[in-house]
Amino acid sequence: MDDEARHRDRMRRKKELIDRRIARATIDRGVLVVNTGNGKGKSSSGFGMLARSLGHGFRCGVVQFIKGSFSTGEEAFFRVFEDGPLSYHVMGEGYTWETQDKARDIAAAMAAWEVAEGMLSDASMDFVLLDELNIALVKGYVPLDRVLAVLLARPSQQHVVITGRGAPDELIALADTVTEMRVIKHAYQAGIRAQKGIEL
Amino acid sequence: MDDEARHRDRMRRKKELIDRRIARATIDRGVLVVNTGNGKGKSSSGFGMLARSLGHGFRCGVVQFIKGSFSTGEEAFFRVFEDGPLSYHVMGEGYTWETQDKARDIAAAMAAWEVAEGMLSDASMDFVLLDELNIALVKGYVPLDRVLAVLLARPSQQHVVITGRGAPDELIALADTVTEMRVIKHAYQAGIRAQKGIEL
Repeated sequence: MDDEARHRDRMRRKKELIDRRIARATIDRGVLVVNTGNGKGKSSSGFGMLARSLGHGFRCGVVQFIKGSFSTGEEAFFRVFEDGPLSYHVMGEGYTWETQDKARDIAAAMAAWEVAEGMLSDASMDFVLLDELNIALVKGYVPLDRVLAVLLARPSQQHVVITGRGAPDELIALADTVTEMRVIKHAYQAGIRAQKGIEL
Repeated sequence: MDDEARHRDRMRRKKELIDRRIARATIDRGVLVVNTGNGKGKSSSGFGMLARSLGHGFRCGVVQFIKGSFSTGEEAFFRVFEDGPLSYHVMGEGYTWETQDKARDIAAAMAAWEVAEGMLSDASMDFVLLDELNIALVKGYVPLDRVLAVLLARPSQQHVVITGRGAPDELIALADTVTEMRVIKHAYQAGIRAQKGIEL
């Protein structure tokens, strides 16, 4: 057997193993998904899952612990569904994570977290996206222990997606599905700024 | 300086460097984004960018080179916008990538690619998502050279997102932003099957 054939054979056996494990997966319950790492796609993947959930007629909630006060495409798009199955909350207007007023930052993060807690204790809420929560955890503005306790106690069928760099180890341990978005390259390295529809 | 202070200092300098590079990025043009790797989030991130693009009022196109014939949440959700700014095409009904009829597989993949070519030559199309195209490239069902040539010749302001495992090196070389979605863990490993709103 030549190298290529050996490689194909190994890949085939690996695929069979994964297929068997997937076939054995029969449990239905709410999953906790964490998107972390330095690469692109953490938030956009969360919003893609939100679209899927809305497509299935789910009741959904979003809290954005965002880093800027800019208005984004995803907000403009999903706000339309607020009269129906979607609750959409953006952390304190004009909030930038760049203020020198740490007490104000903590208050804004905690106020957003309290909105999230309301969603995470509401059994009629099928899907909750906590966009960029990890930055608030890394900075210690929202206490990790409290977040873990609330996630553990949430309704058993509720899906939760948490995004942001630097997901704490304890959150990764609790999660069902964790992806590290790894940068291979990024357009800004070639002088291209953030583009509407892609980053904004 | 202790270890932790040194680490913080290194991180701060690294962040400053990245911030300066981002500040220098002033070019606006269509970008080619590739989401690859074995982890979750490749397609959902593409659909999140689609939502952003629709939020900005862009004209958008989607071609799904999908692996199954199941109806997905994203399709149910985004089909609603087909009367307006969105063209949505799913490769041949019932197509599974599992048939023993290779000629039929190639014909289905090429028919979907021809729809994609129409979008990629249409300057009124602001954003094009080619979901799971990479699998067709890896299998050689759609010729890579043709795809690269069409991507290179597309309208200069058009954004394109290509998803799927095993992105070819030449496609990565051509792309502006490439992310590898790396599995840290996946719910199926704990016996949980694909969930509506998350995978479906």
